[in-house]
Amino acid sequence: MSTAGLLTTTDDDLLRRFTESANTHDRVVVPTPAFHEWFAERQAANSYQVTQVPFGELAGWRFQPDSGNLVHDSGRFFAVEGLSVHTDHSEHAHWTQPIIRQPETGILGILVKEFNGVLHCLMQAKMEPGNVNLTQLSPTLQATRSNYTRVHKGKPIPYLEYFTAPWRGRVLVDVLQSEQGAWFLHKRNRNMVIEVTDDIPVLEDFCWLTLAQLHELLHVDNLVNMDSRTVLSGIPFAAPVDRPSILDEDSFRGALLRSLAERKGALHELPSVLSWFTEAKTKHTLDQQRIPLNRVDGWRATDKHISHDEGRYFSVIGVDVQASNREVAHWTQPMLAPVGRGLLAFLAKRIGGVLHVLVQARTQAGTFDVIEMAPTVHCTPENYEGAEQPRYLRHVLDAPPGAIKHDVVHSEEGGRFHHAENRYVVAEVGDDFPVEVPPDFIWMTARQATNLVRYSNYFNVEARSLLTGLHTLW
Amino acid sequence: MSTAGLLTTTDDDLLRRFTESANTHDRVVVPTPAFHEWFAERQAANSYQVTQVPFGELAGWRFQPDSGNLVHDSGRFFAVEGLSVHTDHSEHAHWTQPIIRQPETGILGILVKEFNGVLHCLMQAKMEPGNVNLTQLSPTLQATRSNYTRVHKGKPIPYLEYFTAPWRGRVLVDVLQSEQGAWFLHKRNRNMVIEVTDDIPVLEDFCWLTLAQLHELLHVDNLVNMDSRTVLSGIPFAAPVDRPSILDEDSFRGALLRSLAERKGALHELPSVLSWFTEAKTKHTLDQQRIPLNRVDGWRATDKHISHDEGRYFSVIGVDVQASNREVAHWTQPMLAPVGRGLLAFLAKRIGGVLHVLVQARTQAGTFDVIEMAPTVHCTPENYEGAEQPRYLRHVLDAPPGAIKHDVVHSEEGGRFHHAENRYVVAEVGDDFPVEVPPDFIWMTARQATNLVRYSNYFNVEARSLLTGLHTLW
Repeated sequence: MSTAGLLTTTDDDLLRRFTESANTHDRVVVPTPAFHEWFAERQAANSYQVTQVPFGELAGWRFQPDSGNLVHDSGRFFAVEGLSVHTDHSEHAHWTQPIIRQPETGILGILVKEFNGVLHCLMQAKMEPGNVNLTQLSPTLQATRSNYTRVHKGKPIPYLEYFTAPWRGRVLVDVLQSEQGAWFLHKRNRNMVIEVTDDIPVLEDFCWLTLAQLHELLHVDNLVNMDSRTVLSGIPFAAPVDRPSILDEDSFRGALLRSLAERKGALHELPSVLSWFTEAKTKHTLDQQRIPLNRVDGWRATDKHISHDEGRYFSVIGVDVQASNREVAHWTQPMLAPVGRGLLAFLAKRIGGVLHVLVQARTQAGTFDVIEMAPTVHCTPENYEGAEQPRYLRHVLDAPPGAIKHDVVHSEEGGRFHHAENRYVVAEVGDDFPVEVPPDFIWMTARQATNLVRYSNYFNVEARSLLTGLHTLW
Repeated sequence: MSTAGLLTTTDDDLLRRFTESANTHDRVVVPTPAFHEWFAERQAANSYQVTQVPFGELAGWRFQPDSGNLVHDSGRFFAVEGLSVHTDHSEHAHWTQPIIRQPETGILGILVKEFNGVLHCLMQAKMEPGNVNLTQLSPTLQATRSNYTRVHKGKPIPYLEYFTAPWRGRVLVDVLQSEQGAWFLHKRNRNMVIEVTDDIPVLEDFCWLTLAQLHELLHVDNLVNMDSRTVLSGIPFAAPVDRPSILDEDSFRGALLRSLAERKGALHELPSVLSWFTEAKTKHTLDQQRIPLNRVDGWRATDKHISHDEGRYFSVIGVDVQASNREVAHWTQPMLAPVGRGLLAFLAKRIGGVLHVLVQARTQAGTFDVIEMAPTVHCTPENYEGAEQPRYLRHVLDAPPGAIKHDVVHSEEGGRFHHAENRYVVAEVGDDFPVEVPPDFIWMTARQATNLVRYSNYFNVEARSLLTGLHTLW
């Protein structure tokens, strides 16, 4: 490894600088009202049209004759295949389903730079065909390998050179993380945060924002996209030392700050948390067999979609996209369109005055290694109509308004998923909620969760998004 | 998760207690000379005979007619299959080879308990048919799942109840770790350290030892087995605060203690170390396809062994084992017998007065996820005769005697590998050795390495063994 990036400051200092950015509402490059104006202007500046089309109109895509798999002629991008799952850790012991296979590892990256002594993130107004409102706030770079190696043959990708070796900046975060296990087989992207000190030209779709500004924007529905949220989740914070009064407060915020600050206040120390995860991984089995898409049971294909017989889960559809500022101006592609809105919630509880979130050990069809850490409630309620409801779902749905600390609707990745909205909730439970929980659950502090996200394949993407939401509350 | 194991002390305190055990030569339950007497007595108390036999004499094992795979009639234990490998990160771009597939996750566990205020490890004198000297010092528990779920139908396994939920003790280490990637496909075992406060009956093959005693025994050839070494590698240490004079010393030991102690002295901070690993994983490819054993090219089978045409790498053989104190007293099994003795070495260098070891990003046939962190030199020199030698091999072989800080021969897992000896070396390089190294290498402090071993699939088993060796030097 080159020593050009030899660090002169310590990890602790890095955490402190991130925390300062999360606390800074003044000293910003673009005040938030001006951001909203800019964002509205970017939305208006470009026109897009996304239309559902029959599979037969997808240019460059075809169903393979033998397998029925939906593939691109180049063999790149992604494919929709079949998956057969056997597991002892789900509502069903066995099922088959369509799944997206995208073995390439893309890059989701945010450039950060100090202005006025405060770290700012270079964010992008970017259209994705699956977004409800089309344009959302995205990372500096959001590129599949096909993308950045120019299989698209589109325009060059701005700022790509900062996210590939040799490094021009300082690497602050760089970790492989999973994406939606219900829809992707073993999908991972590289989540990166790179600090630069150079002068960076700011292109018209880009804007510098502090973490405090981003935290504010994360309370707006369908604004900050999934790619931004997962990259932001990898940012480690120190507890703010300049707020002693709040740290001592008997409030949700006080308990959250203590959760970020204190090691001694954790119900379970690191070895026990890691052991809980190891126990879940070794106790449970997940057997994944790739099968031809035309061998999937309980799903039916028409010329316009592949859907579940009972109308559950999701459909595979085709879309036609016309865009003026995307790398290529017109394209067609398959997408996955979920049925219903998901609910992703952390139950949070003060234990000894320190906030803990209830993390779930969860297995999904496409999980990379049997188990990942998920929100307390991770489901699409509609899929459970007439069936036994997931544990703790009622605690979230029936929570009194004062207990709901965070409640926002975000979209999942708009490049693959069509109108995939999830409701993200943090709900506080009271003293009557037991500390003792079933084996698939564990109480964790914000500090512990934040530390685990620095390593690969501990937290799933939904839990990472929710953790990003939790950090907006202090 | 149950809160019965709610921790009352912090992680820091745990590290301090491990360090104290590693420093304690007095206050031991069994003085080291008495240990050696006991160990010799245990070796003498039981007689074993291990004989190589033709495959046809392996009871319960057979070659599957279609695939030629060597399997057990029960479908359990393990199988010898074929593997086809394509990678851009090895001497060869493509090869096929026999490989052991053992999807079950076993447990390697050490019970620890305080005596005289010092943590002691319950170690076992255990025979394994592949060990050069048959009996070696093993963890408290060393059990495959077939083993502990009694597929063997043998005697009950001592102390098993301490390593399965519900926990009777406090979990200090519990992590899934990989084993030999050259010989196993995706093999992992659960590495555990459990602290108990109960009175524990000490069976005749067991003995309590401090970490200081184990560190001393790790300098003896073929005494502490691989299973012990990998579990010990998971033990995190704090720098000893009671040795200020050594900490300030301009010596190898001083530099090593500072390497364990200081965060600020690291050449690369944690984000850069993690990024280096992510970069290697995303830059390289490893495609592993299971193939029938009879489709492996360049290997030939006789009735007694399956060997490489040029006599390289390893052979698969059959052995007959007669033992008096094993769970079952007589059995036959296939084993993998490596050709030649491996060399596993860390180059170590003082950078700014802090010792750093040179860690390699390495891909092997059976690696779980493209790359793991390996020793600087990780090879069997004989396999490179007439070919280009691995990088840094000459630095180890030509190191002056004073530069060799650790040099010991250990066996790999004697339950699967027959006489699989590796030479483990830590060799210090001087100021003339460049700090700048190729992309597949990175300098890491002892503290950084020790921290990474707490997470799964960062360090490979050879690097973990060597890290255990490094800890014997302070």
